[in-house]
Amino acid sequence: MTPSTARPHGLSIIAGEVGRPDGSGTPFRATDPATDQVVEPVFHPATDDEVARAVAAASACFDDYRATTPAERAAFLRAIADHLEAARPALVARAGTETGLPEARLNGELSRTTNQLRLFARELELGEHQGVRIDHAQPDRQPAPAPDLRQRQVPLGPVLVFGASNFPFAFSTAGGDTASALAAGCPVVVKAHNSHAGTAELAGWAIVDAARECGLPAGVFSLVYGPGTTVGQRLAADPGIKAIAFTGSQGGGTALMRTAAARPEPVPVYAEMSSVNPVILLPGAWDARGTAVAAGFVGSLTLGSGQFCTNPGLLFVPAAQADEVRAAVAAELRERPGQTMLSPSISRAYADGVERLDASTRTTLVAAGAEGPTCNAPAPAVYATGLDDFAADEALREEVFGAASLIVSYDDVDALRTAIDGLEGQLTISVHAEPGDHAAVTALLPTLERRAGRLILNDWPTGVEVNDAMVHGGPFPATSDSRTTSVGSAAILRFQRPVAYQGFPAGLLPAAVTDANPWSLPARVDGALVRP
Amino acid sequence: MTPSTARPHGLSIIAGEVGRPDGSGTPFRATDPATDQVVEPVFHPATDDEVARAVAAASACFDDYRATTPAERAAFLRAIADHLEAARPALVARAGTETGLPEARLNGELSRTTNQLRLFARELELGEHQGVRIDHAQPDRQPAPAPDLRQRQVPLGPVLVFGASNFPFAFSTAGGDTASALAAGCPVVVKAHNSHAGTAELAGWAIVDAARECGLPAGVFSLVYGPGTTVGQRLAADPGIKAIAFTGSQGGGTALMRTAAARPEPVPVYAEMSSVNPVILLPGAWDARGTAVAAGFVGSLTLGSGQFCTNPGLLFVPAAQADEVRAAVAAELRERPGQTMLSPSISRAYADGVERLDASTRTTLVAAGAEGPTCNAPAPAVYATGLDDFAADEALREEVFGAASLIVSYDDVDALRTAIDGLEGQLTISVHAEPGDHAAVTALLPTLERRAGRLILNDWPTGVEVNDAMVHGGPFPATSDSRTTSVGSAAILRFQRPVAYQGFPAGLLPAAVTDANPWSLPARVDGALVRP
Repeated sequence: MTPSTARPHGLSIIAGEVGRPDGSGTPFRATDPATDQVVEPVFHPATDDEVARAVAAASACFDDYRATTPAERAAFLRAIADHLEAARPALVARAGTETGLPEARLNGELSRTTNQLRLFARELELGEHQGVRIDHAQPDRQPAPAPDLRQRQVPLGPVLVFGASNFPFAFSTAGGDTASALAAGCPVVVKAHNSHAGTAELAGWAIVDAARECGLPAGVFSLVYGPGTTVGQRLAADPGIKAIAFTGSQGGGTALMRTAAARPEPVPVYAEMSSVNPVILLPGAWDARGTAVAAGFVGSLTLGSGQFCTNPGLLFVPAAQADEVRAAVAAELRERPGQTMLSPSISRAYADGVERLDASTRTTLVAAGAEGPTCNAPAPAVYATGLDDFAADEALREEVFGAASLIVSYDDVDALRTAIDGLEGQLTISVHAEPGDHAAVTALLPTLERRAGRLILNDWPTGVEVNDAMVHGGPFPATSDSRTTSVGSAAILRFQRPVAYQGFPAGLLPAAVTDANPWSLPARVDGALVRP
Repeated sequence: MTPSTARPHGLSIIAGEVGRPDGSGTPFRATDPATDQVVEPVFHPATDDEVARAVAAASACFDDYRATTPAERAAFLRAIADHLEAARPALVARAGTETGLPEARLNGELSRTTNQLRLFARELELGEHQGVRIDHAQPDRQPAPAPDLRQRQVPLGPVLVFGASNFPFAFSTAGGDTASALAAGCPVVVKAHNSHAGTAELAGWAIVDAARECGLPAGVFSLVYGPGTTVGQRLAADPGIKAIAFTGSQGGGTALMRTAAARPEPVPVYAEMSSVNPVILLPGAWDARGTAVAAGFVGSLTLGSGQFCTNPGLLFVPAAQADEVRAAVAAELRERPGQTMLSPSISRAYADGVERLDASTRTTLVAAGAEGPTCNAPAPAVYATGLDDFAADEALREEVFGAASLIVSYDDVDALRTAIDGLEGQLTISVHAEPGDHAAVTALLPTLERRAGRLILNDWPTGVEVNDAMVHGGPFPATSDSRTTSVGSAAILRFQRPVAYQGFPAGLLPAAVTDANPWSLPARVDGALVRP
């Protein structure tokens, strides 16, 4: 029985089947943040048995699933995209109710999600991620012969994905983590985000339908409801889970890091957590295009209620121009209405963060917008401080999730560089510079590279391309693992490990590492890079 | 003052300078394990100040060092190799005294070490590790233009390397971890292994001399003495250290994993720890070449006193052939003399491990060799058991470091597969098979891939090639991070992280990601793999 309908049923999906809750958990409903009204149906947390069965089914089908060809896996990803497209009206409607995000944004995000699935399908066909390295035998080598040795990447095993509140499609059930794990050959168990539980279920059935259509084992996908602190932690501790992907708060991410490290077999955690995404304004940029800079800053800050991982929470400005910048930002921000935030709790947390900025003796208010017409639509707000105060108070360097930012004035580039060096790791750092500022950019660049995963010139951090070159990652606590990206085709590399085959005859070798190379994979052969 | 002489001075090397101990630690001397005699000179543990200065110097020079070109870094690695070659007689003599390893082995290991340095020099010239990915701007893309985005890998920062007892050259001061970290652009602080402190110092000065010759900052290398539990842990906790590489015991490795995870900023740990390296004998192989198999097994087991990470600690044999195998192994092993082990403590731990196997009610002795003529040269020993007993007693699955192994008889391939599935992660699993056994190999292969980093057909696990395809790694507890290898050119990838540059003009971009591509790096450009 698989109710792939337009309406959520409120039950976990365990290996393609509707869950059978036993009433042991506390049921919950979604809330429409625009109205604070609860939304039907009731959702039932997964039982211990359901959690165990989801992981067991993923483990049981792992070898079969990873034995699929690149073409078969690519077809699966494209089928998921097709099923999501078919469910688009229901998905967008339900997500709108559960998240308060506008329809245009949700339609765009769903397109991004299907594009992402198709990007990983292309990645499978390109095959570079298989990491083939072949060193042929050298029977005559001195002082001893060299054996035939071949390396490829194999998938890690079942992956636990946590849905993210701020991207109900692109970073949730069928989002980038799920797409890259499935592409790598890993079965996936999703812990749905409770605030968009219905959206999660609809997307979940799209994956189940695609798996069935492609003749794949049902264990390749499960979707589980329940609190992160119980159901999520139980999943993370299950020995069958071999990697964890998470987007959310630093508290949630570090709790998963601790759980993963304390397991008898520790596993990798890819947690994308918090970032204030500093923006550096250099003097020439302000002189050349101050108005556009102020408008761009406020636009990036308030986009989607400031609920992007890459929202610009800090703006460093030259002290000599600080008054002008503050005035221009205030003019842009004043009267700008708040938009519905994702949930009442996120809206409350935003209010607390703004209150913290407001109460600080080290800050002054630059401007605040207006409250929006819906529930949970607090006013955007910008505060200002100087570099010494900023350096003196750690609380000013913490992320306020939402449309709040801090303008920090600096006297010179050396002081600015010291301040950037003192920041925690970031997803992004942006610089606005004209040619006259380039010497300063060059002086700052090594520091910026050490503190962030993506450096942006003359643009704003919101807007994360999904392509080969994107890095959505960065030093801790921006993420738990700076060696990776959670967006873009390189995200597949997170779910793999190398295996070498020594002295295997062609008939026993996996197809990927045979000389026949049936999938036309690029490889490094006897020290040379070879493209078929 | 840099005493690059043929004799160790017993002092840490802090950023190219001789350490200045303050007498706060307990001095120690090396011991010649063949004679149990202490060896001069006295070694002085690094003070807290020396530890802090070593890391501070590494941090201070990081941006300068990583700004070197691939050619400059390759020249540095080759210069280290040249200085090691120049010091060969002194290095081999001192290492022989400190480790008891024979001269031929040490000469071979030193050649392996210099080859390794040259391999990473070649890797720098090949440039694939820079991971260049370029997506050019698409100003006309709908619904919004795409920015220019370029990705490259940058080094993590200062790396802490722990010298390994069992490879005084190839996995110690100037060994694979140091070579790959330096190649990646990371300064290195080595915590010398106390049991070959003098060898470490001589190799350390070779690196210092090479750095000076190449005009590199002195902070690029330091060598520190002291106990792992104090000096080693203090280094691992220092905020300036950005990655840790370790080869040694599971206790030491997991202690570092805990320290690294508990830091305010957690860092990657690459610990290569323990592995019993199962060897599977299939029936056809025994029928076809039983004598050679028995001889090969005993040869691999006793090589270097069994002190290799890949020593075969388990031999699975068909129950129907078990009597024959045991008899043949006994004939090979009997009278074979023990060789000097690396240190009195390692020899004692070996004796304890053999005692544990001997005391078990689930094992029988197959054969033991004879004690060697030197001190610390215990007899090799092989025991036998059945699959049920093996599964029932976890202690039988633990590594005994040294020339001890356990022959386990199995009834059929299904039972064998279950047993392999129940093993902890391994560096290697070997299979001996003839064409008639190939169906069994195919049936076992997915399980083997999940349990080990290197699979070997018709050969023995000792003997680790240093090339592109090698994987010296595997699931926990073989290593702390199954996604990596500590041997071979891919080891450089451990010390890097990706950074993306968005919207940068050519003049501000790092050379690696410019369209001009001055270093002829391979890249992925607009979705296509490009080789200059």
